[in-house]
Amino acid sequence: MAILIVGSVALDTIEANNKKIKDALGGSAMYSAMSASYFTKTSVVAIVGNDFPCKYIHLLNHHKIDTSGLAVSAGKTFRWMGKYSCNLNQAKTINTKLNVFLDFAPVLSTEHKNSKYLFLANVDPDIQNNVLNLVKKPKLVVLDTMNLWISTKLSKLKSVLKRVDLLLINEDEAKQLSKENNIIKSAKVITKMGPEILVIKRGEFGAMLFHKDNIFSIPSYPLESVEDTTGAGDTFAGGFIGYLSSCNKLTFETLKKAMVYGSIMASFNVESFSLERLSSLTKKEITNRFKMFKKFTEF
Amino acid sequence: MAILIVGSVALDTIEANNKKIKDALGGSAMYSAMSASYFTKTSVVAIVGNDFPCKYIHLLNHHKIDTSGLAVSAGKTFRWMGKYSCNLNQAKTINTKLNVFLDFAPVLSTEHKNSKYLFLANVDPDIQNNVLNLVKKPKLVVLDTMNLWISTKLSKLKSVLKRVDLLLINEDEAKQLSKENNIIKSAKVITKMGPEILVIKRGEFGAMLFHKDNIFSIPSYPLESVEDTTGAGDTFAGGFIGYLSSCNKLTFETLKKAMVYGSIMASFNVESFSLERLSSLTKKEITNRFKMFKKFTEF
Repeated sequence: MAILIVGSVALDTIEANNKKIKDALGGSAMYSAMSASYFTKTSVVAIVGNDFPCKYIHLLNHHKIDTSGLAVSAGKTFRWMGKYSCNLNQAKTINTKLNVFLDFAPVLSTEHKNSKYLFLANVDPDIQNNVLNLVKKPKLVVLDTMNLWISTKLSKLKSVLKRVDLLLINEDEAKQLSKENNIIKSAKVITKMGPEILVIKRGEFGAMLFHKDNIFSIPSYPLESVEDTTGAGDTFAGGFIGYLSSCNKLTFETLKKAMVYGSIMASFNVESFSLERLSSLTKKEITNRFKMFKKFTEF
Repeated sequence: MAILIVGSVALDTIEANNKKIKDALGGSAMYSAMSASYFTKTSVVAIVGNDFPCKYIHLLNHHKIDTSGLAVSAGKTFRWMGKYSCNLNQAKTINTKLNVFLDFAPVLSTEHKNSKYLFLANVDPDIQNNVLNLVKKPKLVVLDTMNLWISTKLSKLKSVLKRVDLLLINEDEAKQLSKENNIIKSAKVITKMGPEILVIKRGEFGAMLFHKDNIFSIPSYPLESVEDTTGAGDTFAGGFIGYLSSCNKLTFETLKKAMVYGSIMASFNVESFSLERLSSLTKKEITNRFKMFKKFTEF
């Protein structure tokens, strides 16, 4: 089943490991769409400025990502500038220029409105709510959010939460949202807010899945070299929902495998800057890493 | 196969979760021995003062732990006072009084010298080296250490490392010892220092096992309530080596299961202060948690 992703497109300038890249492809919609594209037909709804390099559109289309929902607006593309020091888990934002992203008001085609799998990547909860009003009968709605919206738009965020099936969130954000310090207690509070399924991402320490009384916990894929962790969460989300939609079956078993695929896709992503590694994968590499993941964790 | 544990015995005063206990049984030898006792015959070599409560000796003997190597010296037992604030992973030491532990010079009986499984819990590397000189033909020597010895007695510690089969160490300490920031790179550096097998403990985030080119990674057992994390690493070690000695077979398969048993024992331990929970377990509870661990991680 095809999936629709609504999120941001950015041109990122990133410093990590004494290397620097400038105006590289980034944003939640890009990481998640590229990741999902290995599993299923993927459409993006997002906004870019007229300075957005054509080569990136070509890259998306080369991966058969439907860019008919990518609005090109007069003005500049969203820019993010970040720096990682020793701790590769946390970027320090040096500069954010929203530019045309300030005017993001998603318009959905008839085809997009009929999407069965919807990923509302991290954007303003008002926009997420608006998109939910447009999509007709989605089978699975997955939401991501961030600390900013928990702090500044909590009631709006809570109204979206009531309408989604699954929330993907970082551990710190889960604790902030639930006001609980224990991850399981957090999960109980959050699932009462609406989403029946919850995925808590723990960066290099893995991820946990909560569904009714079931818990599933995985470590991250062990990596000897990590270049740049930007977009790891979005890449996880893309692999996760991409795999689920390719199964078109929502059980605890498929959710567990989706967690592993999400984790694997994120592990590829952090091995290079921007979408370099993520956009040049083969299905065989993904399958092999899935097998290795099993080997690393099975007893 | 029986195991011999050489380590510390302390009377701990601990504040955590707005509760406080005073002069409770603690120390690396106590946590690890109690944990190991569920798997195999366990002997301890340690030192206490003549103020050491008899009830603790009875508790150990009740668990069939051989205390013939527990020297009772004139003076006071080692005291440790610690406090946990929000972060239950890290205690703040308020006070340490080594007392009779300052004079700890292990004497081993003939039976202890013939031990096949030896756990050198965290004590001064000089003492660990001395014990190794006494034990005749151990089948497996497991070592634990801490940041203090890495900072102050590195060359002595390195000389012990050359003589052990397996090192159990925290992630931060592994990074400190290896001068590497990546856990896999750390493991490569440390295994070159001597121990063929390495276990890196990651607290609430699980643990990793490295053996030749094999890697095994587990999350921690999910717990809704954590009371006191004191002794979690030692409890892990006890369950780990206890299980291994009960198999008396050293393969990657038995090492992986030992990791899970170590993790499970630690999960029981942190559910209460001191050795309360750990000393009142049934084998059925351990087996059930092993099954649950499989359920939480299998896909």
